[in-house]
Amino acid sequence: MKSSPRLRVAWTPTQVADLATEDLSHSLCVAIDVLRATSTLTTALAHGASAIIPAAELEEARSLRAAHPAALLCGERHGLPPEGFDLGNSPREFTRGRVAGRTIIHTTTNGTRAVRACAGAAETLLGCFLNLSAVADRIRSRAADVGCVVLACAGTFEDFSMEDALFAGALVAHLGWQHPIRSLWSSRIGTLENALARTRNGRRLKELGLAEDVAFCARIDSTPTLGSVDRNGWIVG
Amino acid sequence: MKSSPRLRVAWTPTQVADLATEDLSHSLCVAIDVLRATSTLTTALAHGASAIIPAAELEEARSLRAAHPAALLCGERHGLPPEGFDLGNSPREFTRGRVAGRTIIHTTTNGTRAVRACAGAAETLLGCFLNLSAVADRIRSRAADVGCVVLACAGTFEDFSMEDALFAGALVAHLGWQHPIRSLWSSRIGTLENALARTRNGRRLKELGLAEDVAFCARIDSTPTLGSVDRNGWIVG
Repeated sequence: MKSSPRLRVAWTPTQVADLATEDLSHSLCVAIDVLRATSTLTTALAHGASAIIPAAELEEARSLRAAHPAALLCGERHGLPPEGFDLGNSPREFTRGRVAGRTIIHTTTNGTRAVRACAGAAETLLGCFLNLSAVADRIRSRAADVGCVVLACAGTFEDFSMEDALFAGALVAHLGWQHPIRSLWSSRIGTLENALARTRNGRRLKELGLAEDVAFCARIDSTPTLGSVDRNGWIVG
Repeated sequence: MKSSPRLRVAWTPTQVADLATEDLSHSLCVAIDVLRATSTLTTALAHGASAIIPAAELEEARSLRAAHPAALLCGERHGLPPEGFDLGNSPREFTRGRVAGRTIIHTTTNGTRAVRACAGAAETLLGCFLNLSAVADRIRSRAADVGCVVLACAGTFEDFSMEDALFAGALVAHLGWQHPIRSLWSSRIGTLENALARTRNGRRLKELGLAEDVAFCARIDSTPTLGSVDRNGWIVG
């Protein structure tokens, strides 16, 4: 029996960007953008979306839409859907009626960057509180054949995001592993929803009238759906 | 020669509160509240304040003032000085002309709690970017005779504060020690002033018209002054 894989936490955008320059061929990566990209894309897959094509830039997203005219164009800049988009980045918009069987072109800033930075990994998963146990189970099942598990916290613009670090801590605790980030999770105060609501992004979403998104993203293990990145860089369930 | 002391980072208010229940008699603690309590008190001592009496509650502060009528009554609630106070919690208010030779009664929420939680320590220092090297030098000089160095990040209300974690990371880097929090410091983007300005407290201070406080607190090593807590719980230089 092999020992547990090494655990690395990239918890700032700079550290996540550095992943793109590394050899991740023996690493299992988890891209984490709790508020809201990975929560939203996990929800889209749970509701039957066939695939998600991540796009870094608005122009790239619009070009992809021209190439895939049946796809839904989704995402955000500064919390709101860009002009001409079909949907924003709220998980509550990604209902079964809207997304089942559809391909989704999705662009956010930090979330997309985190997924792309993990492009060279043996496997890349999308992690959020909605699928915490599914992510943990997959990591356990791969533990014998990957050298390293990398938690890529997307952050906000140039900075660390508390909600992503909280999820990384929850995941480490769920796995029964040790890393200092675990203590951010174990020493939180109040409900997860309250802890998320107090973060910079939680408060920004409230200002935008999107406080219900925060409550939505706090529903631990509401789905067994586990998004992963395929060889084309698309996200599939 | 003894090995390096153990390093612990209490980086949430819950972890800081837990320190009060532990045996810290072989620990050197650093209380950290970059925006703004430890920056302000370090400035007060640098400008000749004779001692600082920390008070947890407003009523306690006012009672202490009745007992020490010559003392300056200082501190904040929600960023601003409470009614009847001589000074708030802005380091720029604590000029030599105002504080030299004076005893200061000082109350903030998280900063005071962090100092008090370290009450049982072998030694407690006040750390901030203004006296980073002085704190590091003192830790080095005590490294042979304390079992543990505890970095007590005061946080904000119930939550982790990025600026305190940044300072803890800077201190660990300065000491040449290893701890994951060091990477928060090494992967920051832009100047320290910009990084502090982007934090929750940095943005709150800007909203209050106190952006210059953030710039002030970002002046690394502007003073060799090192505040420490004496046997009565007072802070002296």
